[in-house]
Amino acid sequence: MVILQLSLPISMDLQKNGSINGSARIRRKRSSKFHCTLPPRLFMSNSQQPQYPNLLFPSTNQSVAAILLEDGSQSKLYPLTKKISEGAIPIAANYRLVDAVVSNCINSNINRIYALTQFNSTSLNSHLSRAYTGQGLGKEGFVEVITAYQSLEDDDWFQGAADAVRRCLWLMEEYPVTEFLILPGHHLYKMDYQKIIEAHRNSRADMTIAALSAGREQDPNFGILSLNSENQVLEFRLKSDSEPITFVSEESPVKCNDVAYREFSSMGIYVINRDIMVKLLREHFPKANDFASEVIPGAISLGMKVQAFLFDGYWEDMRSIEAFYLANMESTKKADMAFNSFFDKKSPIYTLPRVLPPTHVTDAIIIDSVIGDGCILGRCKIKGTVVGMKTRIGDGAVIEDSVIMGSDIYQMEDIRRSGMDRKGLDIPIGIGEDTQIRKAIVDKNARIGRNVLIINKDSVREGNSEANGYMISEGIVVVLHSAVIPNGSII
Amino acid sequence: MVILQLSLPISMDLQKNGSINGSARIRRKRSSKFHCTLPPRLFMSNSQQPQYPNLLFPSTNQSVAAILLEDGSQSKLYPLTKKISEGAIPIAANYRLVDAVVSNCINSNINRIYALTQFNSTSLNSHLSRAYTGQGLGKEGFVEVITAYQSLEDDDWFQGAADAVRRCLWLMEEYPVTEFLILPGHHLYKMDYQKIIEAHRNSRADMTIAALSAGREQDPNFGILSLNSENQVLEFRLKSDSEPITFVSEESPVKCNDVAYREFSSMGIYVINRDIMVKLLREHFPKANDFASEVIPGAISLGMKVQAFLFDGYWEDMRSIEAFYLANMESTKKADMAFNSFFDKKSPIYTLPRVLPPTHVTDAIIIDSVIGDGCILGRCKIKGTVVGMKTRIGDGAVIEDSVIMGSDIYQMEDIRRSGMDRKGLDIPIGIGEDTQIRKAIVDKNARIGRNVLIINKDSVREGNSEANGYMISEGIVVVLHSAVIPNGSII
Amino acid sequence: MVILQLSLPISMDLQKNGSINGSARIRRKRSSKFHCTLPPRLFMSNSQQPQYPNLLFPSTNQSVAAILLEDGSQSKLYPLTKKISEGAIPIAANYRLVDAVVSNCINSNINRIYALTQFNSTSLNSHLSRAYTGQGLGKEGFVEVITAYQSLEDDDWFQGAADAVRRCLWLMEEYPVTEFLILPGHHLYKMDYQKIIEAHRNSRADMTIAALSAGREQDPNFGILSLNSENQVLEFRLKSDSEPITFVSEESPVKCNDVAYREFSSMGIYVINRDIMVKLLREHFPKANDFASEVIPGAISLGMKVQAFLFDGYWEDMRSIEAFYLANMESTKKADMAFNSFFDKKSPIYTLPRVLPPTHVTDAIIIDSVIGDGCILGRCKIKGTVVGMKTRIGDGAVIEDSVIMGSDIYQMEDIRRSGMDRKGLDIPIGIGEDTQIRKAIVDKNARIGRNVLIINKDSVREGNSEANGYMISEGIVVVLHSAVIPNGSII
Amino acid sequence: MVILQLSLPISMDLQKNGSINGSARIRRKRSSKFHCTLPPRLFMSNSQQPQYPNLLFPSTNQSVAAILLEDGSQSKLYPLTKKISEGAIPIAANYRLVDAVVSNCINSNINRIYALTQFNSTSLNSHLSRAYTGQGLGKEGFVEVITAYQSLEDDDWFQGAADAVRRCLWLMEEYPVTEFLILPGHHLYKMDYQKIIEAHRNSRADMTIAALSAGREQDPNFGILSLNSENQVLEFRLKSDSEPITFVSEESPVKCNDVAYREFSSMGIYVINRDIMVKLLREHFPKANDFASEVIPGAISLGMKVQAFLFDGYWEDMRSIEAFYLANMESTKKADMAFNSFFDKKSPIYTLPRVLPPTHVTDAIIIDSVIGDGCILGRCKIKGTVVGMKTRIGDGAVIEDSVIMGSDIYQMEDIRRSGMDRKGLDIPIGIGEDTQIRKAIVDKNARIGRNVLIINKDSVREGNSEANGYMISEGIVVVLHSAVIPNGSII
Repeated sequence: MVILQLSLPISMDLQKNGSINGSARIRRKRSSKFHCTLPPRLFMSNSQQPQYPNLLFPSTNQSVAAILLEDGSQSKLYPLTKKISEGAIPIAANYRLVDAVVSNCINSNINRIYALTQFNSTSLNSHLSRAYTGQGLGKEGFVEVITAYQSLEDDDWFQGAADAVRRCLWLMEEYPVTEFLILPGHHLYKMDYQKIIEAHRNSRADMTIAALSAGREQDPNFGILSLNSENQVLEFRLKSDSEPITFVSEESPVKCNDVAYREFSSMGIYVINRDIMVKLLREHFPKANDFASEVIPGAISLGMKVQAFLFDGYWEDMRSIEAFYLANMESTKKADMAFNSFFDKKSPIYTLPRVLPPTHVTDAIIIDSVIGDGCILGRCKIKGTVVGMKTRIGDGAVIEDSVIMGSDIYQMEDIRRSGMDRKGLDIPIGIGEDTQIRKAIVDKNARIGRNVLIINKDSVREGNSEANGYMISEGIVVVLHSAVIPNGSII
Repeated sequence: MVILQLSLPISMDLQKNGSINGSARIRRKRSSKFHCTLPPRLFMSNSQQPQYPNLLFPSTNQSVAAILLEDGSQSKLYPLTKKISEGAIPIAANYRLVDAVVSNCINSNINRIYALTQFNSTSLNSHLSRAYTGQGLGKEGFVEVITAYQSLEDDDWFQGAADAVRRCLWLMEEYPVTEFLILPGHHLYKMDYQKIIEAHRNSRADMTIAALSAGREQDPNFGILSLNSENQVLEFRLKSDSEPITFVSEESPVKCNDVAYREFSSMGIYVINRDIMVKLLREHFPKANDFASEVIPGAISLGMKVQAFLFDGYWEDMRSIEAFYLANMESTKKADMAFNSFFDKKSPIYTLPRVLPPTHVTDAIIIDSVIGDGCILGRCKIKGTVVGMKTRIGDGAVIEDSVIMGSDIYQMEDIRRSGMDRKGLDIPIGIGEDTQIRKAIVDKNARIGRNVLIINKDSVREGNSEANGYMISEGIVVVLHSAVIPNGSII
Repeated sequence: MVILQLSLPISMDLQKNGSINGSARIRRKRSSKFHCTLPPRLFMSNSQQPQYPNLLFPSTNQSVAAILLEDGSQSKLYPLTKKISEGAIPIAANYRLVDAVVSNCINSNINRIYALTQFNSTSLNSHLSRAYTGQGLGKEGFVEVITAYQSLEDDDWFQGAADAVRRCLWLMEEYPVTEFLILPGHHLYKMDYQKIIEAHRNSRADMTIAALSAGREQDPNFGILSLNSENQVLEFRLKSDSEPITFVSEESPVKCNDVAYREFSSMGIYVINRDIMVKLLREHFPKANDFASEVIPGAISLGMKVQAFLFDGYWEDMRSIEAFYLANMESTKKADMAFNSFFDKKSPIYTLPRVLPPTHVTDAIIIDSVIGDGCILGRCKIKGTVVGMKTRIGDGAVIEDSVIMGSDIYQMEDIRRSGMDRKGLDIPIGIGEDTQIRKAIVDKNARIGRNVLIINKDSVREGNSEANGYMISEGIVVVLHSAVIPNGSII
Repeated sequence: MVILQLSLPISMDLQKNGSINGSARIRRKRSSKFHCTLPPRLFMSNSQQPQYPNLLFPSTNQSVAAILLEDGSQSKLYPLTKKISEGAIPIAANYRLVDAVVSNCINSNINRIYALTQFNSTSLNSHLSRAYTGQGLGKEGFVEVITAYQSLEDDDWFQGAADAVRRCLWLMEEYPVTEFLILPGHHLYKMDYQKIIEAHRNSRADMTIAALSAGREQDPNFGILSLNSENQVLEFRLKSDSEPITFVSEESPVKCNDVAYREFSSMGIYVINRDIMVKLLREHFPKANDFASEVIPGAISLGMKVQAFLFDGYWEDMRSIEAFYLANMESTKKADMAFNSFFDKKSPIYTLPRVLPPTHVTDAIIIDSVIGDGCILGRCKIKGTVVGMKTRIGDGAVIEDSVIMGSDIYQMEDIRRSGMDRKGLDIPIGIGEDTQIRKAIVDKNARIGRNVLIINKDSVREGNSEANGYMISEGIVVVLHSAVIPNGSII
């Protein structure tokens, strides 16, 4: 079978195609005969300015509510997601992944933001509540966290992104918005959502999907869209499938064979009219759990107008530890940064404000790196590395091509609490003297001893040594949160 | 049977006595031969000032973390809990139930507060996050909401209060507290928690339970404690039981027969030493879900020192719709208020700050009532009534002995949105012209038409007419949240 | 003489025409021969939608900074301004005067707001800092209070509104705005400033002045504008002058005689291009202290394009105690309110959020009144009255057609502090038993005893009895802030 | 001559001894015959724990209000105070001077803080309002800025610290405090004010003055106290005086000759009982402007009990550019820091929270330095230097033993605004390529070009070259705020 996309819960029922077939009667047919002959620029037209002025519509920030969804499929960034959800993972020293998407909303003047959470949600909930409560969101703005809850009607967890939205619709209907903007909460990119909303309104679509040139590497689980010259979505298939699959509802007027088309990849970002959303989730597909695999193909099959909005900027879907690692590496590049938004004052990335002492450096050589707030760096060498907030690096340490996530507390507090409940606490949080680290991710609060070598000496591609405090993924060593790596260890 | 108390989840397993018996080997024996001969004032000694000064201990706010628990047992305040948890129910016009307990913490200088939520948690989470984020909690204070979450280790909901605390212990261990203070999140009372903490420390107990003179009416599900003259807890039984039941561990040095004792009722408020909490939940009773029915009797059986702290102020456990109704009625009494803390500037009740226009009154006679912020009152008569925020009352209306919870929005907005998705919206939110209401609770956003009579004309004690928008509980009519009561209805 | 307008400081030098004459060489000639023949609606054209869309300009909130000016001329609302500046005076029970203008800014998406203060500025500064710091002002919004300061360059107070702006220009130049919007900080009206900014931009004016139909009663100190059919300002004169006076610079191409014109009154609201402001204050009129009397006529004389923007909504300039009284009375009218913005959720009036208990009423008849938050009302009658926050009214009191400003603290605190430093404190804050008040303004924290009659029994129009705690202005008794009116007094 | 101390305004009248002599009849006599024979530790007794427990007193945070005073005497830190007051000067990369004192208050549980400002007050007011409004100050805490204001009664600026307090007394009397704690707002030290308050209460003094061992180098303008063995203040003289001068009121029971004494220096920190403060400022010395030179000697002369509280920690009074420079240098020392409070999590220094990107480093050698948040460092060498927030340092730059204050904005914004109103803006904010700086202070937003040498090549001790953008003070080059230093300059 074909269709899969980000799914919120880990307990989701994979037997859901039946319900779609049953309830929406989608016809699928194989169709490999389309050709793409139109020049690509034609397909970009809807990312331009609208042809008639904005004034005819309600202003963006009063009429669109963003819905942030977490990706509960735990495997992609494991073990970073062992205790926290993906959106809460630190990125680029000073931020968390979710900040990029929330900041896109704020910078796009969308200030009604719902975050639907469930999986290891505590730190993400806490971050969102503290970072965005009443700050920078304008007179009626908010970031409202809606965590999966038990109720008399429904005693179960959210069963997927669509199920989560359905169960929270009664809450989100409070404000008279005209469209919902569905956003994965852990992707890294800079997009002015006003553009996709304008395109959506101009095309008078029921739903608009952000899409990327299919040539780019990305998560194979995101669907592939086939578009006609008007950027209308005609087809939907999975990359791994040998054959494309067309969803055509019986009422559909679209004649796929007659038009040129080209393939694009879905980014998992959807603009959906409010009333369409209500109808899809409550009437047409009341059992559907996912958008990508159920609701969207269903909408196409019903003959709804589904458009694509083409995007060609930097976009990282964090589909793997390596992708996350590379995204961090981007932040260390100054000139010609692929994603330089962290330093862009016009559309800044927001996060939790903090009060930390300045970084203290005893004697360090630092090359092509970013240093988060409040670090304590000894006589060390740091190259091509992201050094997170409150990181302590001992004398003689050499760190290269790595991501150090930093720590929540300073060492001096830790010593006060040592001996309380865990062993290994004689090794302080941070990176010990004369330790060398190369191409690794060191999660928060790890205690790496003296004379440790973390260099993946056996060039392992994949390895799980969680009991010893680390894993290796795509050749990158990941030291676990709060792990203790004894003095003299060699990894 | 014996052991029952407030329990967090609705899905809790009632077969838990087995695990206690198995894991903790508690011996129960019937013992009805105790006598109470000591004068009651002796038992009150530990609520006085400590004998040695406070300076020997760390100051309260740095060493105690409060844990607020919701009561998931949905039945008691249903239908008010249909969409929200008990802590989020409006009380006394301007507040929510949880505000009383959070304010007790703040006024007691306990400013590290965890709220564990799960059941219909959205509005409670939102209220706590917005009302208490960084406000009034001092330099290191916080109210952190921890909502039930899915994780790799544990895919299930919280199974009870003890299970909830166990699953969140790793989060709450972050700060080096010495005691946890367990608090039901929806009781109404004013207590200086410093007193119970001092008593706990002075007696060098492992655990201290707040208790009430057993003569007072209260929730029969709370346990009854038998104390010796030192206020040590010897026994635990349920009120409904004909026979008391003693938990005595084999190591217990206490000779129950030799001491005078007296019965008190537990208030569900516990001070527990941090290390004791960790041992009880992780080592001794790793399967226990509840405190009252499992952990506390288990601790007694293990020979731990469990003390009682006697309290004799106003306390309302909200054990029924009637209790909730009467608590509201208390707030309308000016002189000699049983619970006057809402007007007490020295230990005020905090809540979400608001910006509302003043109450506008056209021509009203108002007697023994409280009027929340931003009401619009026509030519009406209001007597013995709590009128919640943003309530609109039409001309000719007569409201007596009732609780009107108010509304989230003003009528004018509502008209803008009418016809959107529900019928009956031609009746505006609020109370219509010439309508009479007596001894009723009107939940938020209800739309009560013109010429309606809500007087329980048939003097029903209990009745469920949810389809028509109301229930009757203990003779009190409860109009449901967002209910529509058509013009001319008689209830 | 001609030119006068609200001026910021009380120490302003009235000999300022000389400097204008000297520096700007304005020729004044008498000109009484103009005729107004055009229908008035033609003059309203620039308050309509712009002819070309907003998109060509930078969005309002990024390009306009508002400058709020206080009116230091102390006499108008004295004695209400004895201790606080006009903007801090309570209005409509729950608000302060400045809230109306700040809320206009927020509702117009102008979120860079400077408030220039000097006269009795403490309470205004405190209110603005606490009410608007980071709240509701969007991602880059702020309300920055700039109070008169001493420096090495300038050891004197602000000498007028223009002087204040000039001395603060270096601070306000920080953000790259294109226009400044000058606003008196204590007027009461609802205006969408985007309209005047659009009109300003569309007409490509150097400066645009909000103006009112001259037929309406208003402060005679505001200038009167003569406009041509394009709403360009040709002339400026004072109402009280028998003869209009034209400011024509020698370079001015405007031929006044050739065009129809009509008279309008300035509202003291100006949109001025940033570079024009800098040139006017630093180059052309470096000694000018006031806008109305010096800078604006000077700009006209220099041939700058000065436009008028016509406004015909409710507007109250608080030119007298009576005007302030009547503005409060407006807020008690429900139907057909002249100024109903306090109850308008679409463009609400913001203020300092508060947490107060609900109003408690023992037995009151309340007619056509507004009741602020947290009052304690005994067995009293209230009619046509504004009752401010935390007001206490004793049994038997009758209040009619009055403005009670409320109190900062509750009685119980007061008793604790009684005897500390002032006499009369045995009379509690609020209004005593059996006291009658008619057509009075009772300032904050006044202590009015029992059996007091405040009815202006001698029908005095103007009277100063400050030593006894009150004044009479235009027949309205004003009881002073913190005044003590002994039991049995008759006023 | 005798009496001098920090004074708030620059316009203060130095002819004030007359009024003291007149109003308080102080007798001064020369007295050089005292001996100090007691061991110093005896004098330290009152900094220990009180002998009776804290419980007998109201808790500190409810009964003490701190009053922060700025030092208006402009010369000491000029030119850093050219546009801002001393409290607003950046220190240790991430802080402002005033943060140290406010943080001392917060860490001492004193959370009612008034800041009296007047001289270049805008940035200090803004910092205090934004950094401390409602944050970390507990349920009733506040930092209230009271800026000099014009009123009907008093049209003049504050004439000194005592005058400022007198004029604001009516505002500060609002809360029922028992003592005022007077604090200079720009000193750097860590003190638990609870200690001095306890000592004050235990000794039942009218006033207590913090004092330092006189051997330490300090501002000669602070007075010198002679104490008896009970730490009572007997005498007061200026360091520069050859002869001590005793203030003895005629009623004074103290026999100076009979007791051993020792000299200490005043730190300008006073605890004064509330009622004593009111009497001193309103009754005894209604014309006195200063505390040190007038009110305190006057109090001694009246026979009031004035105690000293001895302090021996790190304390820096910022009496010169060099002192400010050395205080910054302290923050770069890691081990054995004289003032390490910036890194002390138990009593942290608070400041305005911020959201900045991590520091980006291309290729830097950094030795014994602190790096503020959000810097952009090229291929440079930094040694013994404080690098403030948002500093940009170009390739090839070498910075040694310097204080770089950083910038308010990033370069990219600046370029957008270039050409607006000042020349030299082609040189970007920050430090240009191949520039060398040694032992300098570079104020905020300075634009230092390429190939600049700032090395004080002529070893000037004092020099004023403000027109060229710098001054030299005590051999330290100070580059002015927003100065432009052209490419190739040599200083």
